[in-house]
Amino acid sequence: MRPIITLTTDFGTRDGYVGIMKGVMLSICPDGQCIDITHEIPPQNITAAALVLESASPFFPPGTVHLVVVDPGVGTNRRPLALITPSACYVGPDNGVLSLVWRAARHCWSPDEIRAVELNEPSFWLPQISATFHGRDIFAPVAAHLACGVASERLGTPLTNLTMLPLEEPAWEGPERLCGRVLFVDHFGNGVTSLTRDHLERLTPPSDHPFPSGLRVTVGEAGSPTAPHLPLCLPVRTTYADVAPGEAVALIGGTGRLEIAQCNGNAAAPGG
Amino acid sequence: MRPIITLTTDFGTRDGYVGIMKGVMLSICPDGQCIDITHEIPPQNITAAALVLESASPFFPPGTVHLVVVDPGVGTNRRPLALITPSACYVGPDNGVLSLVWRAARHCWSPDEIRAVELNEPSFWLPQISATFHGRDIFAPVAAHLACGVASERLGTPLTNLTMLPLEEPAWEGPERLCGRVLFVDHFGNGVTSLTRDHLERLTPPSDHPFPSGLRVTVGEAGSPTAPHLPLCLPVRTTYADVAPGEAVALIGGTGRLEIAQCNGNAAAPGG
Amino acid sequence: MRPIITLTTDFGTRDGYVGIMKGVMLSICPDGQCIDITHEIPPQNITAAALVLESASPFFPPGTVHLVVVDPGVGTNRRPLALITPSACYVGPDNGVLSLVWRAARHCWSPDEIRAVELNEPSFWLPQISATFHGRDIFAPVAAHLACGVASERLGTPLTNLTMLPLEEPAWEGPERLCGRVLFVDHFGNGVTSLTRDHLERLTPPSDHPFPSGLRVTVGEAGSPTAPHLPLCLPVRTTYADVAPGEAVALIGGTGRLEIAQCNGNAAAPGG
Repeated sequence: MRPIITLTTDFGTRDGYVGIMKGVMLSICPDGQCIDITHEIPPQNITAAALVLESASPFFPPGTVHLVVVDPGVGTNRRPLALITPSACYVGPDNGVLSLVWRAARHCWSPDEIRAVELNEPSFWLPQISATFHGRDIFAPVAAHLACGVASERLGTPLTNLTMLPLEEPAWEGPERLCGRVLFVDHFGNGVTSLTRDHLERLTPPSDHPFPSGLRVTVGEAGSPTAPHLPLCLPVRTTYADVAPGEAVALIGGTGRLEIAQCNGNAAAPGG
Repeated sequence: MRPIITLTTDFGTRDGYVGIMKGVMLSICPDGQCIDITHEIPPQNITAAALVLESASPFFPPGTVHLVVVDPGVGTNRRPLALITPSACYVGPDNGVLSLVWRAARHCWSPDEIRAVELNEPSFWLPQISATFHGRDIFAPVAAHLACGVASERLGTPLTNLTMLPLEEPAWEGPERLCGRVLFVDHFGNGVTSLTRDHLERLTPPSDHPFPSGLRVTVGEAGSPTAPHLPLCLPVRTTYADVAPGEAVALIGGTGRLEIAQCNGNAAAPGG
Repeated sequence: MRPIITLTTDFGTRDGYVGIMKGVMLSICPDGQCIDITHEIPPQNITAAALVLESASPFFPPGTVHLVVVDPGVGTNRRPLALITPSACYVGPDNGVLSLVWRAARHCWSPDEIRAVELNEPSFWLPQISATFHGRDIFAPVAAHLACGVASERLGTPLTNLTMLPLEEPAWEGPERLCGRVLFVDHFGNGVTSLTRDHLERLTPPSDHPFPSGLRVTVGEAGSPTAPHLPLCLPVRTTYADVAPGEAVALIGGTGRLEIAQCNGNAAAPGG
């Protein structure tokens, strides 16, 4: 079976930087299979990359190596990092970009089944290290060596604490009310929120309104002069098609998070 | 030989949804080879997806599985569909997106060589089916099973009629005149029309004007206040370089359709 | 080991043209592995494609075939070309797009180790040649045949002189001063210049200002009414983080060229 290496970056696809990293990896691990998750993380947006990786990586086969390069601190003393769990390996800078998969792994596995390594063993890097492109010089070679079966212990020194993202948890305002926020807007204009299916199931619904039909989502705050249509109060539905075209809808989207969408439209577009 | 699975969607490449589908497919068919046709179908534009698939799929090796997810009706009772011909398999929603390859297959093969299946056998899907992401939950797993050699009969119930696109055929206005329209504008700004080489060859040319040099294309209608340069009357040429840079030209493009282009320019740009 | 074929085009990723070329190549070389370098070369920008290819190709394994289709002269008598060196093969139109890798190869290898071939042997093309899509009809099939081990002599007639790009070399204004220009602006808004690390090392630094800290870059010319902040005089630094966020910086970027960047920002953005 050919080892899989996924790529998640903020490099865009215009400049050849992604192709260069694949060239480096295939030089080390000729049998590797490179799969793009996305290269359109908003530049230097560590949170967006962490969320994409958290939602995508569970769908890959065991043993997949996930390379993540969103690295505003490249060239400083932020540590390069590998994280190894029984189901996957992750390689990237220790700036919080791996903190959500780390947290998820700690829910799934016992501490001694997870290993974090500071990548400080240069024999697994390219011979020459630039100050600005560690994706090519350090992270891609290490990902390729992991894909080829190099033991993670050889890549550097064990780490016990990782840099965590300061992601705020949704706030409970009593057992019937939970306050989250839109984390990002996806390609279809759907607003993906910090509220998961799990959060919604923990809400105490009023007895005459079982989940999901009785649950209502209030979007935005009153009194904004630029958004006079807010707050918007929406029922939680099952599919986009549960409301008329053009109408707003709240539902649990494909990644398990509550989304604010517009049937056959773009909820984020002006006038949408 | 490694099975090929192509992907055509309106997902964009920003959110990781395409990567997730590839992870699902490689989990089922580790030997599969994923090739992107495009993920930039305009959101929910079934016609655009059907046209891209029709023009691209003939260039792939026999046995290729083509996965198409442009699915505004996801979560409703539109049927999930697989189409199997002697040269390829197609998997997608039964909303017209497969109707052009279906029509093309019926020109090439006898009816008993083509098979359409409603995908209603959940044992070939992911264990959990969301209401909004059948690309991941139904279509990708089925495509991967087909690529791995699962017989199409096992995937569900035979279908005899598919949902067809209401694509208008070019209108004959006498044997010397045919009226079509621009179907879409490509990346280079070329307007790709509903008129094919085949249509043009069926025109009766005036005897002193053999095809293609004598054929003229009239673009647009007179009297538009916003486009006073219309109608534009163009000769049909062989290559972009047959006219001076900046000049408009009509020619048979790479996909076999008449295109309205501008030499070294963008025919769709303002002022172009 | 599976042969690698890289792709560099100005096709964009919207229309399926890239997928079609991959289908053609996998039909000829089923074992091939297609790796995108970029499809977002600005339309018909031969220089941009030549620069991307020059910077990316050294990172691929020996024997990689690089397919480049930026071809404004398609359908004219510009020659289709293959270039074979001991480390790689290149296939594309003879319009200058291969001239930088050709020049680099002549620095590395002796003349008899490099071979250029005019592709004029139609038995290695698709049976039908369109006037507008030689990427599909000529270049992709030839690249696939090369990847599969067809000897380059069989593909056509030897060539001795290639079309070269009229790239101006940086101008020396005395041993301490060198004048180059911004060649292109990358995805992060960094201006990549014609000045390489090699050029900078050949500068005679004033004795009290050793490279790199003593070197200063002057950006722009005085007296422009639309850019009153120019000229900007910048020190050359090692990393983006050597200056405060928002501040401009000059450094040797990942491709070995001097770049004008902005720490945590976009140097090319208005106000940036």
